[in-house]
Amino acid sequence: MQLGLSVSDSDVSSFTPLVVLELADDTKAEAITWFLSRIRDKQHNGGAELLVDQLLFPAQDGQKSNPNVFVVGSTLQRLLKGAEDVGLFKEFQDGIMRGFTYANRESFKDFYGDGEGFLSDAECQYIIKHELDTLRAKNEEHVPGYPKVKLYPGKSVVRRLQSKGILVQYFPLHNKEYLKRLSFSWYKKIKLSFQPLDDIRHYFGEGLALYFGFLEYFTFALVPMALIGISYYLFDWEDYDKYVLFAVLNLVWSTVFLELWKRCSSTLAYEWGTLSRKKAFEEPRAGFHGVLGFNPVTGREEPVYPSLKRQLRIYLVSVPFVLLCLYLSFYVMMVYFDMENWAISIYNENPNFANGILLFVPSIIYAVVIEIMNLLYRYAAEFLTNWENHRLESSFQNHLVLKVLVFNFVNCFASLFYIAFVMQDMVLLRQSLATLLITSQILNQVMEAFLPYWLQRRRNKKVHKRMRRVMGDKELPLLEQVQLETEMNTYLGTFDDYLEQFLLFGYVSLFSCVYPLAAVLVVLNNITEVYSDAFKMCRVFKRPFSEPAANIGVWQLAFETMSIIAVVTNCALIGLSSQVKAHFPESESQMILIVVAIEHVILAFKFILAFVIPDVPKDIEVKLAKLEFDSLGALKKKKILEAVET
Amino acid sequence: MQLGLSVSDSDVSSFTPLVVLELADDTKAEAITWFLSRIRDKQHNGGAELLVDQLLFPAQDGQKSNPNVFVVGSTLQRLLKGAEDVGLFKEFQDGIMRGFTYANRESFKDFYGDGEGFLSDAECQYIIKHELDTLRAKNEEHVPGYPKVKLYPGKSVVRRLQSKGILVQYFPLHNKEYLKRLSFSWYKKIKLSFQPLDDIRHYFGEGLALYFGFLEYFTFALVPMALIGISYYLFDWEDYDKYVLFAVLNLVWSTVFLELWKRCSSTLAYEWGTLSRKKAFEEPRAGFHGVLGFNPVTGREEPVYPSLKRQLRIYLVSVPFVLLCLYLSFYVMMVYFDMENWAISIYNENPNFANGILLFVPSIIYAVVIEIMNLLYRYAAEFLTNWENHRLESSFQNHLVLKVLVFNFVNCFASLFYIAFVMQDMVLLRQSLATLLITSQILNQVMEAFLPYWLQRRRNKKVHKRMRRVMGDKELPLLEQVQLETEMNTYLGTFDDYLEQFLLFGYVSLFSCVYPLAAVLVVLNNITEVYSDAFKMCRVFKRPFSEPAANIGVWQLAFETMSIIAVVTNCALIGLSSQVKAHFPESESQMILIVVAIEHVILAFKFILAFVIPDVPKDIEVKLAKLEFDSLGALKKKKILEAVET
Repeated sequence: MQLGLSVSDSDVSSFTPLVVLELADDTKAEAITWFLSRIRDKQHNGGAELLVDQLLFPAQDGQKSNPNVFVVGSTLQRLLKGAEDVGLFKEFQDGIMRGFTYANRESFKDFYGDGEGFLSDAECQYIIKHELDTLRAKNEEHVPGYPKVKLYPGKSVVRRLQSKGILVQYFPLHNKEYLKRLSFSWYKKIKLSFQPLDDIRHYFGEGLALYFGFLEYFTFALVPMALIGISYYLFDWEDYDKYVLFAVLNLVWSTVFLELWKRCSSTLAYEWGTLSRKKAFEEPRAGFHGVLGFNPVTGREEPVYPSLKRQLRIYLVSVPFVLLCLYLSFYVMMVYFDMENWAISIYNENPNFANGILLFVPSIIYAVVIEIMNLLYRYAAEFLTNWENHRLESSFQNHLVLKVLVFNFVNCFASLFYIAFVMQDMVLLRQSLATLLITSQILNQVMEAFLPYWLQRRRNKKVHKRMRRVMGDKELPLLEQVQLETEMNTYLGTFDDYLEQFLLFGYVSLFSCVYPLAAVLVVLNNITEVYSDAFKMCRVFKRPFSEPAANIGVWQLAFETMSIIAVVTNCALIGLSSQVKAHFPESESQMILIVVAIEHVILAFKFILAFVIPDVPKDIEVKLAKLEFDSLGALKKKKILEAVET
Repeated sequence: MQLGLSVSDSDVSSFTPLVVLELADDTKAEAITWFLSRIRDKQHNGGAELLVDQLLFPAQDGQKSNPNVFVVGSTLQRLLKGAEDVGLFKEFQDGIMRGFTYANRESFKDFYGDGEGFLSDAECQYIIKHELDTLRAKNEEHVPGYPKVKLYPGKSVVRRLQSKGILVQYFPLHNKEYLKRLSFSWYKKIKLSFQPLDDIRHYFGEGLALYFGFLEYFTFALVPMALIGISYYLFDWEDYDKYVLFAVLNLVWSTVFLELWKRCSSTLAYEWGTLSRKKAFEEPRAGFHGVLGFNPVTGREEPVYPSLKRQLRIYLVSVPFVLLCLYLSFYVMMVYFDMENWAISIYNENPNFANGILLFVPSIIYAVVIEIMNLLYRYAAEFLTNWENHRLESSFQNHLVLKVLVFNFVNCFASLFYIAFVMQDMVLLRQSLATLLITSQILNQVMEAFLPYWLQRRRNKKVHKRMRRVMGDKELPLLEQVQLETEMNTYLGTFDDYLEQFLLFGYVSLFSCVYPLAAVLVVLNNITEVYSDAFKMCRVFKRPFSEPAANIGVWQLAFETMSIIAVVTNCALIGLSSQVKAHFPESESQMILIVVAIEHVILAFKFILAFVIPDVPKDIEVKLAKLEFDSLGALKKKKILEAVET
């Protein structure tokens, strides 16, 4: 088989390699030939019309590397047509974002010459991914060479190869040049400027850029709270009035900040062309299985799985499992309190320095255990949600997010709620809050960035040494790059990053009135988080495919829910404080009624505020309306033209 | 001028008259000529391409009737093309609702021959209204004959003529045949069947049909509550446990019923083709004025009014005015309580039958005063909202609804809240609730249907007699019909009808746990309401133009808000009841905490329920997805065809 490039000319490839395809190393030759020919075939024959080349790695002492690695690229024209297929929005001459069409390409703002540089790297890779994903079986009954890997007309070839383990992975290549520039402006210099969001979006796509935008926005929004928090600490404002003031400020702030974020995010999404972009029709996920039937929407043959069966799995297995995990989490919490009591009793018997440190040990252990439980639960939740066999990736994600959110919320905050409302010990609450917050943040950053980086570096060195040994001084950057990136870990999406921010938001807002310093800790954490997240995206993980996103999706709802719960907890804490009770020495019930009334007023106020503040800024709204108006007008004009013609 | 038909041939008009246009009787002849020629002109000349004829009424002893009355009709082809312009959805061959296009007309399900009967009366009239409304000025600088009535290119001619009083009114004609059948199946026979919603929609359009659908749905949904309410009354269940049970039932019911209504309404809207219909671009309202500028969206010349000025008017005038009215309403309430006390003191001094009746007098007077205040406020609110000078009808409506809702809510329920939570007198609460409910319902039905009907009948008889006298035995049904309908009152939309249901919902749900019989009263009221509303639509008012509606809009939100407030009030009432207090003899504050906790749980449950129940039934969702999928496919196919052609 002489499909690939020889070692010596692999770096003078006839096209810019954008995506790497790795097939299993024992893949049958006829399957490879068929797959490549389908990729190369013309579109009107049902092919993807992309360019693809094999990479041949030199044999390396004993360790044979996988021969079935391919790089995929495309002609510029094909990419531009693909951009229309995926529905990219680009800035038009008149400054408005419009759906890109190949026919009108010259009228778009940054289109010069043949369109070189018009599409970003990430967009090109996204288009190639889309074209590969929608490469459909024609009349093949199975993958050549694999009679058991069945196909039916319309089935996505890539999905089937993936689900059967023939296609091991496919991922976009890093662009070393751009990455160097990006990482320099992003995290390599300590600076007080904003993150280069447009460049991040350019390189990693909208989904990730929105996460970093949110991270930055959230951190800046916390700064005023942090400053107030510091002044509480400095001036010893242990005064009740001031705590109430802080709580109210915090509640109003959290509502306003979440509402304003919607406006920010829609401004960003508009500029990035994702706000009015239509969602593509969603394919079934790779792991979805079922009896072959007909999809009522598309009329295509495709596996069908009865909704009732899925519901049964959810309600009879998943829900009980989640409840069991919650029970376990409570049990661990009670063990923690026993440990805590034991440590206190030892300290009281013999109050020396060592025993003083011992006081913090249970909290730290508990924080570590919480992180471990979250991690284990995460795997279990993913397994279960997979087993529930959701047809669409979006529905899979929603069920996963819900499961994980509920457990993490309970797991992280149960002990704090217990201390606050059952034990009513505000000093312990403050201390636990601080310990939990600090420990979990340190653990998190180590686990998510530095540990993987360290492992990665060891691997890199090995690869580097190996390559050098085999090839002497020949410069083979592409081969080496592909080899390195193939072995990098895969970035699993923004889920964990958002989850972390969600929990941090909980630490700041739920008990804000007893521990104003939490905001300071979160700000400090987030500043390092920006750097460690940026670092991990650029150096630790494979480059992810860009994901178009118009907003932060379900996380907006999660944050809003948290801010509603925060109103309840803060009001309850204020009601519990001894200073408030002292104001109503005679009638406790009157005090409760007043607190409840205030709580209701704040909640009503939140809802009204959310209703009154428009989600999209005025100028963006005008632009969207203009787009809509123009498309109506174009339709009418077209109709008149057609009428004239007939 | 010989534009019109002579008396004798007016009934053998060359087309079916659908819409009546009435110009002021002193309109200048050149304006009329110009206006009619614009209406008749071909579409490619910017005309509306409709048919229009003048109706000449015979002179009637002394009383000269307006000579400038015109009937408008259209050819079938023009109507079908108009149906495409307004974006009507019709059932396609495959059973799916699709946007109607003239080119594919033969593929729609009920299209036979040349399309006679394919469009309903109401749709034809809606299309004619749309074409008249979008008849735009070309190069005319003013209306001929009226140098002061300025025009600019693109200005809607009809809106301008209307705002200057030259066009007095335009309205759709009743279809006597259909009306007779409709009224027979709708309200003329006492029956236990459902309302003929499809026929109502066919005749009056979707907006009104949805109102009647909601009215019916709401009434049926109340029946179980009413049955339980009756059993409370019959078996004297004055037991606390049972009241709590009733309250909980009521709260769950109100949530479920509102959620399920969304599904019902989307099913109806789907079948009527309004669910996926795109909203047309909204023109400025007729009364909107401002300096001539450019609309940033359309780029057209049009009046512009600074948003800041409007905001100032709202916050500096409207808001204080509303607050003043609310204060007035409170003041009247306090006067009512004084009267109440005075009546009780008289009864206590001398408890005889006459004085026993006197006990009810203050409540009845108060109920009447409330209705009068609501009415007066309504006019004031309309005036103010008009003065705020909103550009769009929808924004005008929103501001009006908000003003009226807040006032009516306070005006109707303030006294009940006062009795419940300040006086804490449950017996008086029950009595006031019943009196208010009954009195306001009786008043309402008299005011909204029977009084106008009576006035109308007197007028009709006069017209009838006059016509007979002038024309002897000649049959001139069209002339007489136009004459009669011109003088009928105009139906001002479903606002008042929904408002009434909203207040009734408040009476049922806010204090349900002290007066379960309220549901019975509301059911009884609504049964007569269906008949009186149907009657008033068919006989009292001019036929309204159909309004496409996909849901009940802002009223869904209003009802949901009411059901949230109901949770709070019911929990508070339960907390206040002496039986509950008796359960916690020692600790009142514990009782309050439990009640508050229950309230929070119910509220959380409501939100989760609203989130979990999908707004659109599964089968409709599949159909909508199919529509979307097909349109994407069609787009792609078109592109490929275009690519092949070039």
